[in-house]
This record gives sequence, C-alpha cells and structure tokens, in this order.
Amino acid sequence: MSEQIHDLAHIGHAELLTPSPEQSLQFFVEQFGMEIEAQAEQSVFLRGWGDYQRYSLKLTESQLPGLGHMAIRAWSAQALERRVAAIERSGRGLGWIDGDLGHGPAYRFTDPDGHPMELYWEAERYQPPARLRPALKNVPQRYVGRGAAVKRLDHVNLLARDVAANRRFAQEQLGYRLYEQIVLEDGSETGAWMSLTIAAHELIYVADHAHASGRLHHLAFFVDTREELLRAADLFLDAEVPIEAAPSKHAVAQGMFLYVYEPGGNRVEVTTGTHFIFDPEYQPVVWSGAERARGQAWGVKTIDTFHTYGTPDVSGKATGPPIPPTSAIPALPDQPLHA
Amino acid sequence: MSEQIHDLAHIGHAELLTPSPEQSLQFFVEQFGMEIEAQAEQSVFLRGWGDYQRYSLKLTESQLPGLGHMAIRAWSAQALERRVAAIERSGRGLGWIDGDLGHGPAYRFTDPDGHPMELYWEAERYQPPARLRPALKNVPQRYVGRGAAVKRLDHVNLLARDVAANRRFAQEQLGYRLYEQIVLEDGSETGAWMSLTIAAHELIYVADHAHASGRLHHLAFFVDTREELLRAADLFLDAEVPIEAAPSKHAVAQGMFLYVYEPGGNRVEVTTGTHFIFDPEYQPVVWSGAERARGQAWGVKTIDTFHTYGTPDVSGKATGPPIPPTSAIPALPDQPLHA
Amino acid sequence: MSEQIHDLAHIGHAELLTPSPEQSLQFFVEQFGMEIEAQAEQSVFLRGWGDYQRYSLKLTESQLPGLGHMAIRAWSAQALERRVAAIERSGRGLGWIDGDLGHGPAYRFTDPDGHPMELYWEAERYQPPARLRPALKNVPQRYVGRGAAVKRLDHVNLLARDVAANRRFAQEQLGYRLYEQIVLEDGSETGAWMSLTIAAHELIYVADHAHASGRLHHLAFFVDTREELLRAADLFLDAEVPIEAAPSKHAVAQGMFLYVYEPGGNRVEVTTGTHFIFDPEYQPVVWSGAERARGQAWGVKTIDTFHTYGTPDVSGKATGPPIPPTSAIPALPDQPLHA
Amino acid sequence: MSEQIHDLAHIGHAELLTPSPEQSLQFFVEQFGMEIEAQAEQSVFLRGWGDYQRYSLKLTESQLPGLGHMAIRAWSAQALERRVAAIERSGRGLGWIDGDLGHGPAYRFTDPDGHPMELYWEAERYQPPARLRPALKNVPQRYVGRGAAVKRLDHVNLLARDVAANRRFAQEQLGYRLYEQIVLEDGSETGAWMSLTIAAHELIYVADHAHASGRLHHLAFFVDTREELLRAADLFLDAEVPIEAAPSKHAVAQGMFLYVYEPGGNRVEVTTGTHFIFDPEYQPVVWSGAERARGQAWGVKTIDTFHTYGTPDVSGKATGPPIPPTSAIPALPDQPLHA
Repeated sequence: MSEQIHDLAHIGHAELLTPSPEQSLQFFVEQFGMEIEAQAEQSVFLRGWGDYQRYSLKLTESQLPGLGHMAIRAWSAQALERRVAAIERSGRGLGWIDGDLGHGPAYRFTDPDGHPMELYWEAERYQPPARLRPALKNVPQRYVGRGAAVKRLDHVNLLARDVAANRRFAQEQLGYRLYEQIVLEDGSETGAWMSLTIAAHELIYVADHAHASGRLHHLAFFVDTREELLRAADLFLDAEVPIEAAPSKHAVAQGMFLYVYEPGGNRVEVTTGTHFIFDPEYQPVVWSGAERARGQAWGVKTIDTFHTYGTPDVSGKATGPPIPPTSAIPALPDQPLHA
Repeated sequence: MSEQIHDLAHIGHAELLTPSPEQSLQFFVEQFGMEIEAQAEQSVFLRGWGDYQRYSLKLTESQLPGLGHMAIRAWSAQALERRVAAIERSGRGLGWIDGDLGHGPAYRFTDPDGHPMELYWEAERYQPPARLRPALKNVPQRYVGRGAAVKRLDHVNLLARDVAANRRFAQEQLGYRLYEQIVLEDGSETGAWMSLTIAAHELIYVADHAHASGRLHHLAFFVDTREELLRAADLFLDAEVPIEAAPSKHAVAQGMFLYVYEPGGNRVEVTTGTHFIFDPEYQPVVWSGAERARGQAWGVKTIDTFHTYGTPDVSGKATGPPIPPTSAIPALPDQPLHA
Repeated sequence: MSEQIHDLAHIGHAELLTPSPEQSLQFFVEQFGMEIEAQAEQSVFLRGWGDYQRYSLKLTESQLPGLGHMAIRAWSAQALERRVAAIERSGRGLGWIDGDLGHGPAYRFTDPDGHPMELYWEAERYQPPARLRPALKNVPQRYVGRGAAVKRLDHVNLLARDVAANRRFAQEQLGYRLYEQIVLEDGSETGAWMSLTIAAHELIYVADHAHASGRLHHLAFFVDTREELLRAADLFLDAEVPIEAAPSKHAVAQGMFLYVYEPGGNRVEVTTGTHFIFDPEYQPVVWSGAERARGQAWGVKTIDTFHTYGTPDVSGKATGPPIPPTSAIPALPDQPLHA
Repeated sequence: MSEQIHDLAHIGHAELLTPSPEQSLQFFVEQFGMEIEAQAEQSVFLRGWGDYQRYSLKLTESQLPGLGHMAIRAWSAQALERRVAAIERSGRGLGWIDGDLGHGPAYRFTDPDGHPMELYWEAERYQPPARLRPALKNVPQRYVGRGAAVKRLDHVNLLARDVAANRRFAQEQLGYRLYEQIVLEDGSETGAWMSLTIAAHELIYVADHAHASGRLHHLAFFVDTREELLRAADLFLDAEVPIEAAPSKHAVAQGMFLYVYEPGGNRVEVTTGTHFIFDPEYQPVVWSGAERARGQAWGVKTIDTFHTYGTPDVSGKATGPPIPPTSAIPALPDQPLHA
C-alpha cells in the first residue's frame, strides 16, 4: 500500500447556479442565515459564521440551476503543484485561472462526470466588519443566529453516471479517502462518501439515474447541534420553505439531515454530526442494496425524489423541484441580480 | 384542610419600568426576540411567539427601573369576583380600572410588600398580521427565531421585606400553591416559589436584604429547550449583553437559568424546564440555609449580586447593575419613547 | 357558560395488559428505564424517575394486550365525591373498590366506549430506597439514565367507536378541557385531545376504524428534552426495539414523538413538548381531514399502521403488531410472571 | 515555511494510574459508561462506544494517580519510521517495545517534561461480542447509553514546567499543529492547544505552577452533544461524583466542559464541541493574561483548583483532590485489581 496523500485540505467553496437569483439570495440570507461578503456582476459571495475564508458559497445567476464549480484548497504551494501535476497527467486538466474573489491562482479541471472543479492555495482570511466582530477571537465572525444560522459549507454531493470512475479519480488524483459506499448486489457502485479529514464526508458521489452529466445532488451546510437542526425545521415550516425530507438520521455516515429546496430549485441540506474517522487505514463500509432498502437509521424510508431529482432537472417536467403541493416556487427566472 | 382555590389562571403580563426606553426596547426585540404588538404614549407592548394574548410584557418609560405592575388572569368572571371580594376583605384592594390594551376591567391591589398587581378576566386573543401568521393553526404566531426567541413570560420574581407575609397573601387571597421555600436555621423565611399551575414556579418572593419595598428581582421568559438557552448565551456574548449568571441549573425548582441585565438595569432571565407538580397535596420542599449554601444543582455558587441587586437599585452606588467591567450600560436615561 | 370543573388532577397510572409479561417487564425496565416498585401475583408496578406516586404503570399478565384500566387522581376528597356523584348520574358507574397498591378507595366506571377507569384521592407518596435516593430533595427519585429514562406517564390515547360521545363524557363528567380535535369534512369527529392541566394533552380519543370497543392506541411517557428522545431512538435501534414511527414532530399539539411496540404488542410512545395551554377560555383547534392529510408538522406522512393498529388486535391476522420484517416479536405468550 | 508533517494520526489511548483501582474501574464503567475490553495483571482496558480500536483507556493500579503513558498512532509504517528517526535525533528516544494489548511494536520516548509517550502503527480493530454488536455497520459498537456514555478519548491535557519547550517538541518532532496558546504579558507561555486533525485540540500543555514534572492535568472523553453533557451532570449529581467544574463553555477552543474527579484522584472531563480548524495555514490564537482573566466563554470564572491541582498531587496535603466537603473519596488505595 502506498502512503496517504495529504495534499488537499478541504473544499473552500462551491458555486451554486440559480435562475431566481434575488429569491435564492434572500433564502440564503434569511433562511440559512448567511452573510453577504461581496457582490460581483452576476454573483453574490455568502458565508456562514464559522467560515475562516471570506465565503463558502458563490451564488451565481444562470439559466438553469446546478453546480457552477467547487474549489478545493491545498495544504501548501508545493502540495498544490503536486496535485496539479497529477491531474495534468490524468488528462482532465483545463489550466490555470487568475483566481477569484478571496483566493489566488486556481487550477481548473473536471472530474470524469464533467463537474467543474478548481484547486488553489492562496486565500484571504475573513476580516469581519465592526457589526460582525465576535466577542471571542478564535471565531471568525459574530454569531447572529438568524434563520438556520449555518456555520459553514460541510459537503458537496454530486450526481454521476459512473460513480466508481469519479470515486477513483477523487481518491487517486485528489487524495480523498473513501469512508463508505453502496455497492448493489449486481456489483454496480451507486454511492461513495469521501473525505480529506476526519469528518465523515466532504465529497459524495451518487448515481445519476437519469444518466445525465455534471449534475448536483445537493450542497450541505453545517450546524453544531441536532437541536439547531430541529429548530431549522421549525423555522422553515413557518417560512414556507419547501421541506423535501424532515429531520432524521442517515444510516450512511450517521449524519442528521434536513433537506429543502432553495428557490432556484437546488436541493440544499442542513446537516450535523460528529461521526469522525480517526483510523488511518479505515476499511470503507460497503452497503448492499438490501441494506439500503431498510431506510435511514431509525427506519425512515428514503424519500423517492431523493433518488430522482437533481439540478439541472432533466425530467422533462415543468421547471422546479418536486415540492409538496402546498408550497410554491416560481417557475420562471426572476429579475437579474446586479451588485 | 379546605379545598384548593382554582380562581386564577396565570400571570398575563408584567409591566417593566425602564429609564432607557429606546435601548430596552431594542434589547427585547433584538436580543429576546420579542415582537412589538402595540405602542402607546410611554409604553410599548411586547410579546413572545407563544403568547396567546396580545402581549406579556409592557415596557414603560420611567425615571427608575423596576416593576410597574403585574396582572393575573382569572378562570372566569365569577372567579374574578370571588378573588376581588377576598382581596377587598384583606384590606389591600385599590379598586377597578377600565382595563388596558388587550384586556378588560381590572381590579388593582398591592401585595403586602407594595407591588402593584391587577386581576382581570376579559382578554383579547392575539391575531397575527400576515407576516407573523404561523403554518400550524395551534400556535398563535409564526416562529421567527430572532435572538433568544423567547416563547412567553414564565415567572415573576419579587423582592420582599417579609417573604412569609407575601407568600401567605398569595396563597390565601390569590390561590397560589406553595411548591418550594427557603427557611433559614433561625426560622426566617427568605424565599417562596409558588404557582397556579403544574409549572414549577410562576410567582416567587425572595428576601430583600436592603429592606426596601416593592422591588423587582427579575422577570423570566421561557424557551422550549436547554439548547435554546445555551444558544441564547452564545448570542448574548457576541451582542455584548451583560451576563450576570451563565447557563446552569437551579437546585430550587430544577429550572435552567441564564440571567442578564437589560439596558434599563433590570435583571431578566431566559429559563426553561419541565419540572411539573402534579400532586394536588404537594408538600412544599423546604431548603435550609446550609442546603442553599451548597450552590446550584451542579455545584455552581450563586452569584453575589443575585442576593444584593434589585430594581430600583437602592445601594446608593452609581446608576446601573453590577455588570462586568467590559460591558457598558448607559448611566443616564436616553431619549423619551414616543409611539 | 358554566364554570370550569377543577375536580380531577391528573392520570395517576395506567394498567397495561401483556401476553408476554417477562419480556414486557424487561422492556420497560431496560429500554424505557423504569424501576420496579412492587410486584403482585400477576402484575408488576413500574415508575419513571419523576413520578411522585409509587408507580404510573401497572403491567399485568393477560391473554391479550391492551388497557387494563386507567386511574385519575382527584384534587381532594370532596372533589372526588362530586365526580363520583356525576358519574353515577350518568349511569356509567360501577362502584367502589378498596383501592390498590399505593392508593386508597377508587370508584370504577367505564367511558362510553367501555374502557375501564377509576377515580381516587388517597395516594402514597413514593419513598425511594437508598440506592434510588436523589441528591436534590425536590425530585422523588435518583436519575439513573438507563435506556430512554422516561420521567413519568404523560398521556393515554384510547381508540373509540364514537369519539364525540367519549369526548363529551370526559368533558362533562370528568372536567377535561378540549384543546384540539379532528372533525372531517363530513362532520364526523375522529380525534379529541384533552387535558386537566396546561399540558397539551393527557387523554386522547381517536377513531377506532375497526369499530371494536375498549381498545388502546398507546401509552406515552415523558422525557424532558428533544435530545433525549433522539437518544432513545439511537438506543432502540441498537436494542432491536421495533420502531413504528421515528422521531418527528406532531402537528396536533406540537409534541415530539417516537412510537415503538413493546413485546406484548402494545404501542408505546416516548414524548416531549412544552406546548402549554394557559388560556382559561381556550377555543379548541379543529383540524379538517384535508389539513391532517398534509402529515405531521414537518411534512412527515403519518404511518399507515397508526390508523389501523390498536390493542388488542382485531385484524384477524397473526398475533403481533405490524413490525418491520427485520425485527422479531414472539407470537406466543411466554412464561407467567410471578413475584 | 516548510511543509506540514502528516505522519501521526491521533492519540490511540492513554494510560491512567490509580491508587483505587476497583473504584476507578467502577467509575469508568458506570459513570462514564465505558466497556471493559480486556483485563491484565494490574490493568483494565476500557473503551468508549465509538472507539475503533480495542480501547482508548488503560487503567492501571499504582501507588499514585497520574498518567502512565499516552500512545499516538502513525499514518503508516513509513510515517512511523520518520517520526522515530526524528525523535531519536532529538535525544528523547527510549527505544522500541513489543507492543501492548491491541497494538504492535511501539517506540517509547518522553516529552521534555518527562511524560512517557509511545508511537505505534499496527493496531487491531475492535470486534464487538454479540451483546455489543451495533445495528448499523459503520459504528464499532452498540450504543448502550449507560452513564455519561462517552464515545471516545478526545484529548490529553498535560502539566509542564516549560510549556514552550514541550509545545515546540510536539510541533517539530510529532507534527502537531498549534491552534491556540496563552502568552502572558511578561512573555511566558502558559498554555498550548494542539491537534493532528481538524479537531480543536487533541494535546494540551498548561503550566505546572508547582514546578513538578510529568504530571497530568486531565483526560477528556467526547460525547456528541451539549445535551449529553448536561445529562452527564445530572447523572453525576445523583451518583455523588465530585464535580469540580459544572457544565459551561470554554473560551479557548470553544468546547463545552464538565470536570469531575474519578476515585483515583485524577481529573477527567466530559467534553463536546465542533470547533474545527480547516485552515492549513492557521495562525494560532494567542490569549493574554488579561483576556484569560475574563473567565470562560459566558463569563464563568475558572475554578481555582483548575490552576493548582494535578496528578500526582504535590501539594503536601492529604491525599485526594480538592473536592466539595459533601463528597467523599477514599484516602487510601483499596484492594488490588486482578483480572
């Protein structure tokens, strides 16, 4: 066995595309409780109160919802070079860009399924304005507790035609460690939960049953406690946020979940959990189809749309996620978003 | 043993006096998360999200902080008449007033220590405006989760020269049940915890060591869980709310507490607990001085100011509560508050 | 409007029948964390750590599962007499019995659906043995935290052919207050949530779709926090307790729930909540069929068996509740239980 | 700047010395809820429900309390070799031992303060017996919830004469990252919080004001939620476990704490928190003496004994920690512990 790769530190941010930029922005500010750190032409940069960088969510106006890109921060300049060289050898590299708000030069590439990704090293640390200065100097920002008050981006879950190919790419080129996976009785791999740290999952691939490419399953944001997650459900209920899956506990990776749709049609999750993987030679947990059919940890059946809906939607149905009939999401893009 | 009196239902609201009306209002709205239901000349009427009446806190501009009055709702018109007759016989009655915002005619009186109190029966039920309409019809108001997001007024704690006299008045004239008390080794009674319901305390008297009259120890507002109370402390820390006593658990009545000073100088509490008294012939728990000296439930020593500070302050010191030096509370009344 | 009746205090205990007494006993001790207070010929008397009386659950060996009886404590001897006189007038009285372990003379009667009930006044207060003596004198028993560690009996939910008739009996003869109900679009009443206190529900009737009589829907036991309820689900998962409905939040009465089957086949609930009704003239919340079809508070669909299963089972199917296939409940009564 | 060292994964276990082995064992089993995995001549090996290795606590009979040793697992065989070579060069190496229960060859050394430490690579994964087999295959052990039900060893806090020297050794030879430290106004370094992972602290040095060597401040064990920590305090209260510091929140590293003394006299902590450090170039947070004088996060003053007591005790006073007078800890070693 070759040694572990320790070149990448964590997903620094994800870019989410939305056809309803004004409403999506309002959602992330009021319901998820994020702060606007900066605005550019067609993007707004948002942060959780625990993000040490300037932002973890870049929200960008687009014709269709989905993932714009995700960006992973390296452990050092040398580590970045090593990973770039490896990706170039893999043939999936696209080349360097100058960087973006809050970070330096980034190397662009795609995973085998075509999701745009970047690696970078240089990053600005967040400097809070006076109104967001915290009382204790070891947190980056004041805790204001608005809405679900998410702390930071926790994980990115991507749909893929070929889960195994993408999982191998993430392991071999990026150094992700595989913690859990679903392998059906016919040998097909339909899910892979991976991480760069002791956290139970930071990057997930699940099978895209529509056989489309480059689609997003969901972005997940962290809260510290299960109680905060229940409180988020209480808030979302009254705020008419469409809840796809009410709070419960995943069997895979043991995280608490709460899935909702943001107004652009993307699935987003409030998550928490302290299932840490300290074992340096962890043997991935493999779930069979039969095991997964038992539902989530406490027996809750996985909701159907969880297996069928992703963004952009390719179901050929009218625009928008499969939300409960009592909720309403605008079917058409609203006004453009200017800084 | 005579039968229980079941004529009074609960404390409907309390009036809090503040020399810093603008700042106090901002505190109750932003830090305690209450809503402004109405404004009058020198008062603002505030509510928690769970209050079924229009408000539970009347905040009134005044030269000095303290309790304006507290008002108890009867179980019925006849029950109100019975209590009024009893109070009149006791010689402590002051007579009827026409009522106030949100409730009908009220009978005014004072307890033996001189705290102004009222009894009333007719009350308006809260009708939320569109922006505060809840998703479920069995709660009065939408849960917005701002600040500590207190649910309702929970209890009133009054200082008294003679705890025993006030406790007996509350039991005999008002029908309060005595659940816990402190009786020192010398026989003096220094605390009484009473309730009209199964809740562990709704009205409390504790000894006023300054031998003043009519003073307030604190008002307490309820949150549903211990986690919400810890979250309130996190919020107050960053918002520079002066914390007198950090979250912990009372030995008496088993409630979780978090004590802070509002900008007018009054002590206010965020509380929670589910210590219910179902026993109709409950024998009051009597704590000795030695037992109380052991501190709170988990051994935390009761903070000194808890025994010495009340509003209005009579210590002769400069205006304001004994707050930590890093916090700042304005020493002078600010601008008058107009609706 | 006539005045409120305040003659009854709370449900003191319920008797649960089980064809698997040894296993049921083990369940309530190890999984629900109750203590054995006493044993008689075919019954074991069990208590939660917060019960002020000697027990709140009498577990009795029987051919079939279901409710043996439930017993309500009066506010006083005179109050008991008044209620007995009222029940006698109603024609549903059965007469006095000498009492049972822990309480004095009790008056037996049945509700219109035939559920055996009792009223009593004299009761013994629990005296803990040394090993269960608490540190603080205002709780009846040491908190040992075993299993779900339920605090006390919270509510009894009964199936009834005619919900309206039983609800009226409870209101008029017993003095229960009606807080919530389900009235379908065709005018039929299919659920009634009632209480003697500010607690959101203590006695519930729901329609028995099997048109049987005297059946039990479930007994519910209280824990203090939502976190304890989630923890109970974690424990039950590993202990192979059959979970009928995973933790979530009821729309009706806003309680958190976790429903499981005890080995005798009865549905039992772990519940918590602080939805209190302080309004003395509370107008019952009426839910329509369409509103109930929306599921529980956060959108979780009510599980089918919740509408069809009760004890004793009358479905004609094999013995036992409709549990998940991976769990196993013995189909035959096990050994008799002797003290 | 040289690159990060990623050779060590985490502290695998700590050995705690106790003069009261039977009572200490009972404490860790009943109060901390750990399982006995194995017993040897004078040691018992204990585990939390989340430990992936066979144990994280080795409890060993000894004349005096304190730390026996702590053992850190490497990321790989090669990584282990690199660290051993570095330690040998530092002159602090002691040489290889054959290993111990549950792990392979280990290299012994001491930190500059003389605390015995080991590095190892080969480790057995825990195989639960039938009674401890979990329902979900991604956790090592069934969750039984006994006592505080600690999940795993979280961090080790060591007293040191020269914090700076030990901190540098941990950084340079072992690859620990420094996240927070206390540097007094006179330039002296009195505390260092370090980690091998994103967890906020795994190894801590604080100044030994007694100027002794090789002493232990405390071992900390993790629970998943703040509610579990409050519940632990409730349990400890009734079980007469001496509580040194009631539940509250640390300013440094933001963890929730609950400090108690185990019967051998060692301080042990129940902790939780999700303050993660994702930044690969994290700038350590430096606290001044003035800042620390403000107390813990919510203003609670740090308890005096926290600065003065460690094990073994060198105060010259009678054996045992400075516990509240109402609690009792045996002053003399009890019976020897045999497997």
